[in-house]
Amino acid sequence: MDKLILYRELIQKLLTARAKLRSKSDPIESQTIFDTIKDHYQLVHVGWKDSSTRIYGCVLHIDIKDGKIWVQHDGTEDA
Amino acid sequence: MDKLILYRELIQKLLTARAKLRSKSDPIESQTIFDTIKDHYQLVHVGWKDSSTRIYGCVLHIDIKDGKIWVQHDGTEDA
Repeated sequence: MDKLILYRELIQKLLTARAKLRSKSDPIESQTIFDTIKDHYQLVHVGWKDSSTRIYGCVLHIDIKDGKIWVQHDGTEDA
Repeated sequence: MDKLILYRELIQKLLTARAKLRSKSDPIESQTIFDTIKDHYQLVHVGWKDSSTRIYGCVLHIDIKDGKIWVQHDGTEDA
């Protein structure tokens, strides 16, 4: 399989798996944002905690650039 | 024109226009991330300032949800 196709598939699988860890009843949503044209891939947390506190943050942002995987942002270490 | 198609086009135009404001020689990159399947649209700043300080931040995050435009995050007021 072409390396680029494999990278795209793996990154999307990884982020989708992480997003699914969140329970569906959780008011915070885990969004996966996949721009397969420009090869930007993100996992973002969006929602309201206790209906009053806004939660917004990019958890992971991975790009494919010149055939290489770039971790642009890794917020998983903050948790 | 269908409202949804118009919304998609307008949001992408807006974010692309904002991203283009940045000079090409700027070490900070303005990325547009468009997930047209799940209707998530972002403008993100990524790069290094003076080769030592990491710059990373979502400037705008707009979704289309149930036919409506949701501004999930607006970082433009911080500037």
